[in-house]
Amino acid sequence: MITLKNDRFLRALFRQPVDVTPVWMMRQAGRYLPEYRATRARAGSFMDLCRNPELACEVTLQPLRRFPLDAAILFSDILTVPDAMGLGLFFSEGEGPGFHRPVRDERAVNALGVPDIETDLGYVMEAVRTIYRELDGQVPLIGFSGSPWTLATYMVEGGSSKNFSLIKGMLFGRPDLLHRMLAVTAESVTAYLNGQIRAGAQAVMIFDTWGGVLSPADYRSFSLAYMERIIRGLHREEQGSKIPVILFTKGGGQWLEAMADTGCDALGVDWTTDLSDARSRVGDKVSLQGNLDPCILHAPPDRVRAGVAQVLASFGEGSGHIFNLGHGIHPDVDPENAAVLVEAVHSLSRQYHC
Amino acid sequence: MITLKNDRFLRALFRQPVDVTPVWMMRQAGRYLPEYRATRARAGSFMDLCRNPELACEVTLQPLRRFPLDAAILFSDILTVPDAMGLGLFFSEGEGPGFHRPVRDERAVNALGVPDIETDLGYVMEAVRTIYRELDGQVPLIGFSGSPWTLATYMVEGGSSKNFSLIKGMLFGRPDLLHRMLAVTAESVTAYLNGQIRAGAQAVMIFDTWGGVLSPADYRSFSLAYMERIIRGLHREEQGSKIPVILFTKGGGQWLEAMADTGCDALGVDWTTDLSDARSRVGDKVSLQGNLDPCILHAPPDRVRAGVAQVLASFGEGSGHIFNLGHGIHPDVDPENAAVLVEAVHSLSRQYHC
Repeated sequence: MITLKNDRFLRALFRQPVDVTPVWMMRQAGRYLPEYRATRARAGSFMDLCRNPELACEVTLQPLRRFPLDAAILFSDILTVPDAMGLGLFFSEGEGPGFHRPVRDERAVNALGVPDIETDLGYVMEAVRTIYRELDGQVPLIGFSGSPWTLATYMVEGGSSKNFSLIKGMLFGRPDLLHRMLAVTAESVTAYLNGQIRAGAQAVMIFDTWGGVLSPADYRSFSLAYMERIIRGLHREEQGSKIPVILFTKGGGQWLEAMADTGCDALGVDWTTDLSDARSRVGDKVSLQGNLDPCILHAPPDRVRAGVAQVLASFGEGSGHIFNLGHGIHPDVDPENAAVLVEAVHSLSRQYHC
Repeated sequence: MITLKNDRFLRALFRQPVDVTPVWMMRQAGRYLPEYRATRARAGSFMDLCRNPELACEVTLQPLRRFPLDAAILFSDILTVPDAMGLGLFFSEGEGPGFHRPVRDERAVNALGVPDIETDLGYVMEAVRTIYRELDGQVPLIGFSGSPWTLATYMVEGGSSKNFSLIKGMLFGRPDLLHRMLAVTAESVTAYLNGQIRAGAQAVMIFDTWGGVLSPADYRSFSLAYMERIIRGLHREEQGSKIPVILFTKGGGQWLEAMADTGCDALGVDWTTDLSDARSRVGDKVSLQGNLDPCILHAPPDRVRAGVAQVLASFGEGSGHIFNLGHGIHPDVDPENAAVLVEAVHSLSRQYHC
């Protein structure tokens, strides 16, 4: 095990004292960085980049060279798992992701199996190993996966969706089928995240991007229950270190209490919930990660600093806060504003820690 | 004033006793009905249909001929107001609405004025008068408008948006400009809704489709404050009858208490909040309208009935509930399932009323 030079991120996840609030940004390795666009152009397609461990490592490290971030996150896509399950992932320019073989009937559901992580998703494992080695303990490495519900929306809809009519048609009309699909997907995600942990991921995050489109009861039964199943199945200790789990349901502000009861260590919170409110609701049960509206990075630097100050004040004193955006950084943001954000988090948060 | 033959909808809005729970559906006059598609084809474009009072009346009444609905809603579009403010509304097939002259700088904001309702929006007033006359007291007629914030998203973005980067760029970078635009839009909406009330609307609803993309503080200051201003400016009595106001922020489940304090009579609630929870939070201050997930209409009839039963049970006993979907009915729903929904609401709700 390589010794960490900066463990603020992990300490905050375990609500241990820190000197300043740790910060990273969702999609910090991404299109807003010119060096990312250059590497991406060199790789070919987006998936060529994900499938090339050396280049995936390169883009993972790029934002760390620019900004004093407190964590790195594996560069990959949430749809690698259904792709490995045989659905045939593709990306069309401007239209987002799609699957050649969406899962819409009993036959297709029954054909789904858990992929072999080390072969079918070996390129991700190799990327994690490479990044872990190259990071050399600079900061912790976050592994991640989409939630079973979120993956299932793409698997059934065949791509992005507006109304989620197809998957909800299945949810309401054939809940047995959907549960079967979610069970095998949850098993796949568990194996996938455990593989990442073995390969060097020091924390993992489950992205439930579309849990917020469900009713409270449907959220509990079709999204939260499967995330809880994954959390129970994860290897929470590797080479003597505890591996924390972050759970993020976008639009899940109404369900934080239930999310905190899954056994995770932290909740991702989007900007529609005040951190002060979230903190008073979940108490000391979990840490909180978030939650600046990413659109603020389109405003002048002074406004970015003021936004950072508001989020820090909303969480208040003590450890248990990992600063982040409430969603991914936009491709058209000026990297200078990301620098302002990171600097502001470190300098303005010192007053909240002893 | 024509005497109402069925006033369940208004009675429920004022929390007076009813025999069964009243029901209507957002977008009940719409593309899922073959007779709508025929009239729309006859009219030409979507806006030609909105601008023709006779045809707008015809499509408003169509769902009432099929289903025993308890309210009619004016057929129109929320973007008539910015169109009348001079932005040049157009609809491109498959891409949704757009404006030829989006509002993105100080000069464009300063050029905005309150339209003359009886001339610039005379076609809407004439549609309301026609529908009111043709309804002949069968059920009440609902008038409506978009909220200032929701209208402003289209006015600044120039159409639909995914991230709302442009308007949020203005919100964070030039809040003074955005407040100026929202003020003149709120004044326009107030005049527009008062015009509809004079023309025969017996209730009005404010659709805040995009309030849910804001942080709690930004929601209060950039959306809720302007809706409250409108509510204060409405003529709440016309020809001796009280005119109730329904406020609906999609994704606003976390802010129901603040919404209930605006002086409105009812809150629209989407399906991400349980009505039991909503009711315990707002008490007797307002009625609640909602909140079945519209996707359930893609499931078999038995499941639709079960979904209706769940929503009715969630609200529980007594008046103060207007049954509705949590958002508009989808274009690809079988009208037979809409019939099942309406019948189920009336037959299954009797037990909750004395």
